[in-house]
Amino acid sequence: MSKYIAKALIVQGGGPTVVINQSLVGVIEELKKYTEIERIYGGRHGISGVVKDDLLDLTDVSIDDLELIAGTPSSALGSSRDKPDQEYCHKMFKVMAKHNIGYFFFIGGNDGAIVCNIINQEAKKVNYQLRVIHVPKTIDNDLLLTDHCPGFGSAGKFIAQAFVGADLDNRSLPGVYIGVVMGRHAGFLTASSVLAKQAVEDGPHLIYLPEKPFFTEQFIVDVENVYNKYGRCVVAVSEGIQDSAGNLIVVDLMKNRECDPHGNVQLSGNGALGDLLADLIRTKTKIKRVRADTLGYLQRSFLGCVSETDKVDARIVGTKAVQFVMAGDVDGSVIIKRTGNYEVDYELAPLTEMAKGTKSMPNEFIEGNNMVSQKFIDYIKPLVGTLPLFGKLEAPAVKKV
Amino acid sequence: MSKYIAKALIVQGGGPTVVINQSLVGVIEELKKYTEIERIYGGRHGISGVVKDDLLDLTDVSIDDLELIAGTPSSALGSSRDKPDQEYCHKMFKVMAKHNIGYFFFIGGNDGAIVCNIINQEAKKVNYQLRVIHVPKTIDNDLLLTDHCPGFGSAGKFIAQAFVGADLDNRSLPGVYIGVVMGRHAGFLTASSVLAKQAVEDGPHLIYLPEKPFFTEQFIVDVENVYNKYGRCVVAVSEGIQDSAGNLIVVDLMKNRECDPHGNVQLSGNGALGDLLADLIRTKTKIKRVRADTLGYLQRSFLGCVSETDKVDARIVGTKAVQFVMAGDVDGSVIIKRTGNYEVDYELAPLTEMAKGTKSMPNEFIEGNNMVSQKFIDYIKPLVGTLPLFGKLEAPAVKKV
Repeated sequence: MSKYIAKALIVQGGGPTVVINQSLVGVIEELKKYTEIERIYGGRHGISGVVKDDLLDLTDVSIDDLELIAGTPSSALGSSRDKPDQEYCHKMFKVMAKHNIGYFFFIGGNDGAIVCNIINQEAKKVNYQLRVIHVPKTIDNDLLLTDHCPGFGSAGKFIAQAFVGADLDNRSLPGVYIGVVMGRHAGFLTASSVLAKQAVEDGPHLIYLPEKPFFTEQFIVDVENVYNKYGRCVVAVSEGIQDSAGNLIVVDLMKNRECDPHGNVQLSGNGALGDLLADLIRTKTKIKRVRADTLGYLQRSFLGCVSETDKVDARIVGTKAVQFVMAGDVDGSVIIKRTGNYEVDYELAPLTEMAKGTKSMPNEFIEGNNMVSQKFIDYIKPLVGTLPLFGKLEAPAVKKV
Repeated sequence: MSKYIAKALIVQGGGPTVVINQSLVGVIEELKKYTEIERIYGGRHGISGVVKDDLLDLTDVSIDDLELIAGTPSSALGSSRDKPDQEYCHKMFKVMAKHNIGYFFFIGGNDGAIVCNIINQEAKKVNYQLRVIHVPKTIDNDLLLTDHCPGFGSAGKFIAQAFVGADLDNRSLPGVYIGVVMGRHAGFLTASSVLAKQAVEDGPHLIYLPEKPFFTEQFIVDVENVYNKYGRCVVAVSEGIQDSAGNLIVVDLMKNRECDPHGNVQLSGNGALGDLLADLIRTKTKIKRVRADTLGYLQRSFLGCVSETDKVDARIVGTKAVQFVMAGDVDGSVIIKRTGNYEVDYELAPLTEMAKGTKSMPNEFIEGNNMVSQKFIDYIKPLVGTLPLFGKLEAPAVKKV
């Protein structure tokens, strides 16, 4: 098969990031260079827009407008979480065929890789000529094969800046602070809170990841130990922490509440885990000031907190996606290989491999049950880049009179 | 009374802001110009550090170190929420007298103004020669007499950037998003979310302030109306919303839960109101995707989100505090008067007046029961300054086939 003349279609899927539109613009700008590409279309709200024939023509959007969009958080085309079956795919192909769409770019996370693989397989089965390219994004950083995922660096920066602030706040009004971070199965984002730490007495003092079993009694002991040492304690905890049997801690803690009849639904809401952990510390220790924040959607959408590395990575995976498909006439998922400190190469991996699962924090990134390692810090620093400057007041104590 | 030779003591009280150390450095730098000031001391953790004779000598901290601290969020000296009585004041004066402290600067909010007034009165009663100056700060923006409060502009910027992101996120994956904002009695900070709005279809679509009674049934209708119109709805709500009898809505909603015996303590935690409101929408409407965030401590401490106006204001109220007391040998609270768009003057107001209460959003800043007015936008814009650029994708729809 050689390159063929057709239209290109781009969609965005899953949870947005603050740099996902960098990838969108990377794809659009690069596609414009190829005469084989008749027009560049975008599907509204992911693949659901393809089924509904709800498409935008992106070919003539000006460079200035595209650059503004590139710097704007959240999927500009809209997103969806649809998982297509055979019938869904056939509906897509019907719409695609009528538009003569031959190139399909899906900017998404691990669900996105699965979707791409399904579409790719189904297209082959019905002999629909379609190149399928998965352009990676996810704040969870949990894609297989790649060194890291576009979107993670900026979310990590947000978490780091949030915990610097939370730690300074807690230093000022001492007590226990618990910050609940996104990431159901992978702890990378929670672990980024470590960048707030300059010295051993700085928070976060404890970091709990979904990769390590969470023992409620040990948690209480951990917090008390830190509190007794420093008079305060800052905790970063993943929303996905589990007990040793793999049950979500938030569900465990709910059960113990015994206020089921009316109390179940709303408590699976956003603030539940943080509030329950704070309540544990309040009731099981003598510590009085206990606060919990659930950092919520700001982690993936806050305007104005972008890692420069992440921004560039996100743009280039878009550009490379086009270059790979136009040079090799292949399907695949764009991955990033780290070749130096900090240098990277971009490659194309098979969709079947990328769709196989998700990545967790490797053991070498974790220290004990409640901290991350120097190796993780070395890994993440170039991805997040420099944080705004901050300092601690150092002045001599006045002699008591 | 004329100026006298003595030491100066600075403390910080109440909840921190991201620019509170600008004021600290403003006071220190200006004090250095006066030969009457023997040394510049700082009290650790507010007035509690004075009672405990736990003081730092700030006189010789280098300019470079001070500038780094000025740009660092949260009270560098530490904070406390102590409210002194007569005995507490006498203990303070005893320590102060031994150190020959004659000038007292308290960087604080409305509680800070009350503390200053108490200390001022008690000092007069016992004839302790002490100048007491209240240097304003609060993200709540609820101090009397002043046009606005240092700390508010940066917190308002954080809220605006948070809601821009939340709105773009919600546009991408449509549903109902509820963001709960700090401010028990004053709605200024919640109202700042309006800066995320460029067009009528942008969020926040509904803004609920503590100044207006909140009717649960009306809230559900409001959300449904917006949702039916735009297919989504973004809500900004103050943590302090109350019913028409002045009861906190979070308490009202708790009662209806009927899961009291064990359910009360932890639910007064941070995420409760947002989760309960989200639950209302989930159970009383047919809307499926409902999310709530409680924006938490990031609002007052997030590293790297500072309004330039706020930064300058916070520095100058510190400088002016010193100039007023050294020129006039008076007590008081520094206030900001807006004289143009945007120009300001700084004045000194009597502590007795400043300590009288707090300010709410004036009626002319509010529109109906769920929006703010253009007057409020005109008021807040120069305080928050420019937001990072963002845009919405505009491209022609592809003709359906």
